[in-house]
Parts: sequence; structure tokens; C-alpha cells
Amino acid sequence: MAEEQGITAKKEQNFSEWYTQVIQKAELADIRYNVKGFIVFQPWSVLSMEKMYKHLEKVLQKKGHNPYWFPTVIPERNFKMEASHIEGFTPEVFWVTSHGDNDPLEEKLALRPTSETAFYQMFSLWIRSHKDLPFKTYQRAQVFRYETKATRPFLRSREFHWIETHCAHATKEDAMKQVYEDMATTQEVLHDIYGLPFMFFERPEWDKFPGAERTFAADVLNPDGRVVQQPSTHLLKQSFAKAFNVKYKDKEGKDIFTWITCYGPAISRIFASVIIVHGDDKGLRFPWKIAPKEIVIAVIRPNEALTKKAEKIKEKLEEEGFSVEIDISEKSMGEKFYFWEMKGIPVRIELGEKELNEKKLGIFRRDTAKKEKIDEKELVKTIKKISQEYDKNLIEQADQLFKNKIITAKDKKGIKQGIEAGKIVKCEFCTTSNHGKNCAEWIEKEAQAFVRGTKLDETEKTKGSCVICGKKSTTIVYIARSY
Amino acid sequence: MAEEQGITAKKEQNFSEWYTQVIQKAELADIRYNVKGFIVFQPWSVLSMEKMYKHLEKVLQKKGHNPYWFPTVIPERNFKMEASHIEGFTPEVFWVTSHGDNDPLEEKLALRPTSETAFYQMFSLWIRSHKDLPFKTYQRAQVFRYETKATRPFLRSREFHWIETHCAHATKEDAMKQVYEDMATTQEVLHDIYGLPFMFFERPEWDKFPGAERTFAADVLNPDGRVVQQPSTHLLKQSFAKAFNVKYKDKEGKDIFTWITCYGPAISRIFASVIIVHGDDKGLRFPWKIAPKEIVIAVIRPNEALTKKAEKIKEKLEEEGFSVEIDISEKSMGEKFYFWEMKGIPVRIELGEKELNEKKLGIFRRDTAKKEKIDEKELVKTIKKISQEYDKNLIEQADQLFKNKIITAKDKKGIKQGIEAGKIVKCEFCTTSNHGKNCAEWIEKEAQAFVRGTKLDETEKTKGSCVICGKKSTTIVYIARSY
Repeated sequence: MAEEQGITAKKEQNFSEWYTQVIQKAELADIRYNVKGFIVFQPWSVLSMEKMYKHLEKVLQKKGHNPYWFPTVIPERNFKMEASHIEGFTPEVFWVTSHGDNDPLEEKLALRPTSETAFYQMFSLWIRSHKDLPFKTYQRAQVFRYETKATRPFLRSREFHWIETHCAHATKEDAMKQVYEDMATTQEVLHDIYGLPFMFFERPEWDKFPGAERTFAADVLNPDGRVVQQPSTHLLKQSFAKAFNVKYKDKEGKDIFTWITCYGPAISRIFASVIIVHGDDKGLRFPWKIAPKEIVIAVIRPNEALTKKAEKIKEKLEEEGFSVEIDISEKSMGEKFYFWEMKGIPVRIELGEKELNEKKLGIFRRDTAKKEKIDEKELVKTIKKISQEYDKNLIEQADQLFKNKIITAKDKKGIKQGIEAGKIVKCEFCTTSNHGKNCAEWIEKEAQAFVRGTKLDETEKTKGSCVICGKKSTTIVYIARSY
Repeated sequence: MAEEQGITAKKEQNFSEWYTQVIQKAELADIRYNVKGFIVFQPWSVLSMEKMYKHLEKVLQKKGHNPYWFPTVIPERNFKMEASHIEGFTPEVFWVTSHGDNDPLEEKLALRPTSETAFYQMFSLWIRSHKDLPFKTYQRAQVFRYETKATRPFLRSREFHWIETHCAHATKEDAMKQVYEDMATTQEVLHDIYGLPFMFFERPEWDKFPGAERTFAADVLNPDGRVVQQPSTHLLKQSFAKAFNVKYKDKEGKDIFTWITCYGPAISRIFASVIIVHGDDKGLRFPWKIAPKEIVIAVIRPNEALTKKAEKIKEKLEEEGFSVEIDISEKSMGEKFYFWEMKGIPVRIELGEKELNEKKLGIFRRDTAKKEKIDEKELVKTIKKISQEYDKNLIEQADQLFKNKIITAKDKKGIKQGIEAGKIVKCEFCTTSNHGKNCAEWIEKEAQAFVRGTKLDETEKTKGSCVICGKKSTTIVYIARSY
């Protein structure tokens, strides 16, 4: 029964092993699929990720994005239209080249690594006038990237599940407004619903999306002090609009190239952060709104009467809109409790002979790890109350993650020490244009960390010199290790 | 403004042109994507198909199917495990063979044309004991088939959107129960929710799914007398379980191979039937439950006061859970009415100066094409009433499709005449085992029609001879033209 003993690694001490065990034991994904870098997502993660999609899509639609389903394949000729895109993505592309009994296709097709070159070709057919703008779209899709780095389930796979939004605007100002809207969406969904704290950085020149004029990305902090890049939003160079001829007629009938933005929240990667940020030594802890199931009724030494009672309770709770699982397996009481705590279900209802006779129920909350006995007739009221306060509580706990995690370094040594201590290090820096790349490379080499970028709402002013090269500082950057 | 004149072809007289116009003018899909056989699904179809997915998945989950996301690619070695599967599907496979700058992959990967050979490899790892059975799964996914027949949007594309269920059972009897459950699911969802009438046939030996022992498929009838195959469910041969080693230990600890079933409702293809079955000469007619939007407020000669009023009405209806669109475009009243009728939105609310002053609203129902004036304060009550009776009405109209469409043929001439008249022809037949294939070929050649199979609940008894070959008849078959 070793497998059912729960998680044996400690999250803070052996994060990597903890992560591996949680994914396997809570049955989130099976890595034994026989194509390297591709995994099978199992029901316990799929049910949660479907809810994550639902919340995100609702917010996007409310903000005027319309849903599309584009083909999974992109012809090579589209792919070659924009120079920096070719350079940035070609190494990662999977190519479909033949069909049937090895008959070659007329043209090689890329499995989309991202869909700029599919969308903008159609944008050129759909957008005619200034009245069509802003033209706001999105699609739910899988993308494929031939990763050369080591893959890890959810964090980095060769196929992942995401949303990509693509929008065309009349002016650069309108496009930048969209970038701000994307950042607000990230706050509304990733933080307020999924419960993930993050910081948005403008990436330095050398770390932008291929073809972007400006790139902004959300970094989530892990307990081991590394950050995970989550959604990024990009103001693209007009080279895309020009390559695909995406233009509109203004009020005077003059042809103007649009400004395009795109935004890419990768649901299956964000799920990794849900595991990591909320989980503890016992396993997963799902926020209520994205829990695969919200409640389990753990029946202690099941018999017919108890099973019947459990089904009645389930029915009652489902009528109120809650999702409920019943566990009448042969496992011992302790095993059942451990199992469902590991699976991260928010509430466990405990029902045995004693409870049945006393018309009571045990209620265990995963967020506080507290148990109480309630009168059976208080059940719905109690669950409703828990459901309303659960996520607030979990988010407050998560927000603590960033507390005391940011330190300021005054010199090179300060950077190395801060990074070694698992912090995000803030310091004065020469420049995030390509002239600053040498200093970034020093950091990479000496501290195995990366310049994540600058904060748009940075309040601190520069007043000295770059901590690395000593030249006049023009900006404040944040440095961290990353996945 | 030619494009906005609505549909010019008549559905009954020029079905093919009608279908093409509806897809283009109602903006369901754009066929100008530059890979042959791949199309872009636009918001008006995606919003509806998302609802179709939601209803189907809810029913599947209620019946104990758990959701998975499998990789899009299947390694060639899996694909080659089951002989009839290789033979049946290889001609249709797209192969991923290289990555990056033309570097060959270690192994060719198939873009899944269907996922038996992906699921069952994992089944062999997941299923251990009789207690694990039935093991019921499904996934929402795209599939890819290199079709050689002419493609048509929704009906036949090289990439389509479907659900596939895969289930393993302890006995053949349990597996057949699953097949019946799949047929019941089809009735509950395709008929009762999407409003599509169909007949389930057991396909003859020569028309089974590659690797199936028995294949059952739903045929939907089109107004031109052709049928479209919609979901099919299959009792697979044990060759799959044997090829992938999917077995379980029974109560005595003996290893037994499972019996596997699969079921494949193709949402994007079923959407074609939604267009075809419910549409009329003015365009689309969506059932309420799967309408992209349920209500449009058509503002007549919009001004600030009317726009404000429309927004208030929208808000009120949205609070009640309805989805609402506002049209304050510069189009004329007539254009607006035609446009939204073509788009198939169930209810149009008409709001102009007159209505505003009288505190009245015009209500137009797309199912009955009837208009009424109501007091503004009656709005929510009226809409609720319509929403409750709308689909019943649409389904009754659709059910008429099969009325008088089935005729019995006594001889070869009767078959040809019935088929020419756009009917489904029923007749006595020698056998649906491979010995009957010659007779089926005669029908194909002489009537350009196909033996669709036998009905499981057939009440009529055979009492004579095969209408084609004259030998003793053993079964009643149904014959139709098809897409």
C-alpha cells in the first residue's frame, strides 16, 4: 500500500520530488505515454483545467473577444512571412510532411507553435474599415513545440493547452490599451479566481517574443525561489501587419496598417502554478472555483444504510449546485482521509455509524485543516458559508508568498546572495536595451539567474549606477532564477 | 450590399447552394484558409458548438465517463499494433516526420485520425482488476483525416472536432450494454437537445469500423433524401485488447482480456445537421439550448435614448440568465430583420421610438415566424415562456422529416424509384454478412445508394426472398443515398 501513504517528500525541502509525487499520486497526468515530451492529462486535472478555461473565456468574451477555432496546421509559406518569427520559432516546429503510405504533401505544414501566422492571414480578409476595429479574437487550442530543455508535466511539454488572443487596432495607443487590458485580465483571472500571486514585468530587449516591439509577462514565484513565466502579452511590431497586409481604411479612405497585440495564457502551464502555489506537504489544495470536485463524502466502514444516506446527502448538495464525490471504497478511514487531502478536495464530509445515529456530520476543511461536528440539518448552510470564504482564505495564504521575497541588491555580491537565498533581487541597472545584455550575461553566468525585466508601475527612482558594469543606471530591474 | 440580401437559394430546390450560402453569409466558417480541406470556424458556429459540447459532456459525465486529454500525436508503432486498424486508417493518416530545420524525428508520428491506439496502450497500464471495470473514459479533441472525397465545411473536413469515448468491460454482454447506453445518449443529446431526428442502424459486415465486431450508426436524413452518418458506436473485436494487452484479474485471480467499446460523436459534423435539419429558406434556425445567442434587440433608427433603453433591457435579460445581442448598426430596419433571421437567433426584440413611447416591445419568434406586441413589463415573463416551448416546437417540426420518408420496395424497380424520390427504402435482403456484398454492390451501381444496415428494434419479419438476388431473405435492410 506504499502508493497510498500519500506524499513522502516535503515541499520546501525537496520541491522537485514533491512535485513529481503529487502529479503521480493524485493522478493528474501520466508520463508513460510513448512519445517523448507528450503526456496524458487525467480526469483530476482535466476537470479543473476545464473550469479554468470556463472562467477565462467568460472574462475574455465579456471584454469583447470572439471565439474562433483555427486549423492545427499552418502552411510553411505563412510561417516564412515574418522574419523574426521564422528565426524565433523554426527550431521548435514539428513538421507534417506526408500522408497515407508515405506520400509527400504538396507543402510542409507546421503543427502550430503559436498562431500569429494563421490568424493574420485571415485578418487581412476580414478587416476592411476603421469601423471593424478593434478586432478582438481568441481561440482555445493546443500548441506544439519541440522543446530541447528537459520536459516536466504541466510546466513544460511538447504539447500544451492554452488560450491565445489576437487583436488588431487602429493605432499604437489603442494597442497599448489592449496590453493593459490583458494585464488586468490576468489579475482578474489568475489572481482573483485561480489564486495565483504574480508580478508583471516588461521583458528586456533580448528576451522579447519573436516579432514583438514590447513584451510583458507575469512571473509566478515558486517556493524554491524560482519564477515560472505565466501569461505574456505582446505589442507586435508592424512587421506582422505589413507581412500579412492587415490594414484598414480610415475615415478619409486612406489605407493604414493595423497594430496587432497577442496574449497567451497557457492553461496547462498555469495549472502547474496552481499545484505549486497552493499545495502543501499533504498534497494538492484546490481553490473552490476550480476544484475538480468540491466535496467528498467519506463513508466510514460503509454499509447499506450509510451508502444510502451518503447518496441522499450528495443529491441534496447537488441540488444546491455543488459537485460531490462519494467514497465507499474498502480503504480504512485513515487512508480515505489521507487520499482526499492529497487530492486537494476543499471539503470532506465524514459519515459513519456514530454520525448517523447522532444525526451529526464531520466537516473537514482542506484550507485550514480544521474539523468540526455539525448537526445534519446545518449542512447546506455550513457548506455555503465555507464555499464563500474558502478562496479568499486560500488567496490570502498565497499572497504571503511574495512577502519578504523581494530584496534590493547594492552590489554583485548582493545579487548572488539574494538569489542563493531564493529571493527575487531588485537592483539598479544600466539598460534593458540590447546594450545591457553583457550585464545580464554576467548575472546568468555568476548567479544562474535572469533579468526578468522592469515593472511598469515602478515607484523607485534610479539614482546611481548599474550594479554590474558601474555605468549610469537608467532603470530598476528584477532578477530571479526561473523554470 | 448584395451580401446582406440574405439567402437567395431555396433549401428544397437547390440544397447544395443553400448550404454554401448559409455558411458564408451567416459567418459560420471561412473556407479561404490556405490549406486544402482545413477551415476556420467563426464565432457564430463556435459559440453554438461549445454549447453542444457542454450538453454532451454533462450527459457523459453523469453516466460515469471520465474526461482525459490525450496527445494529438500517436507513434507509428502503436498504430501498427492492430491489423484491421492499419488497413482501414493508414490511407487517411497525416504524418509528422521532422522538426526544426528538417531534422528527422526518431519515429514517425500520426496526427490522430481516432485514438484507439493511444487509449488502449494506457488502458493496459491503468486496468488491473475486475474492480476497475467498467473503465469509462472520453476526450474532447480534434481528429485529422486525409480525405480524398470532396470536402465541405462541417460535413467533411480534414480536421474536425469531436468527442470520443473509450470503455473497457469485463464481458461481451457488459460491452453490448455500453453500446445500448451510447445509443440512448445519442437520443438524449442529439434528438432531445440538438433537435435532430435520426435512425440507428447496425452496419453490414462490409461497412463496419476497422477492427469492430459490430458497428451501430445514427443516420440523419437531409431534405434532398440523402442521409448523413452521425455518431457511431462500436463493439470492438478483442484483437484490440489482445494487441495492447488490456486485461484484468477476475475474482479468482485469472487474467482475462477486456471487451472494448468506442463511440464518436463529431460535434463539427453534427453541427452540419443542425444547419440542415432546422434551417429554412431564410437561413439558420437554432434550437434555444444551443443558440450562439438567444435574443437580439434590434434597435430601429438608433439614438442615444434608444441605445440606453436597449442596454437596460439587455442587462435585465442577462440577469435572468439569457444571452443577448444588441444591434445598433446603421442598417435599415428591414436589413436588420433579415440579417438576424438568417443568423437563426431564436427571438428578436424590436425597439424603436414608437415602442419607447408606448412602453411596448415587438417580439419576433424565429420558429413560428410570428410577431407580437407586448407591454414592456411583460418582457421577462414572455421570454421565459418562449424559451420553455421553443425547442419542443422546433423538434416537432424536425421529427416530421422522417414522416412518409420510409417506403418499402418489393422489387429492384421499387428500390430505384424510391431512392430517386428521395426516400429511405426498406426491403427484404439476403444477408448483411459479406455474402450479401454483391447485392449491395448492385444497389450502389444501379441506384447510387447504400445499404445502411438493419434496425435493432425491427418489428417486421422476413417472409420471402432477397429483392436483389432472389435467395431466401434473412433480414430487413434500409437503403439510402448518403454524404
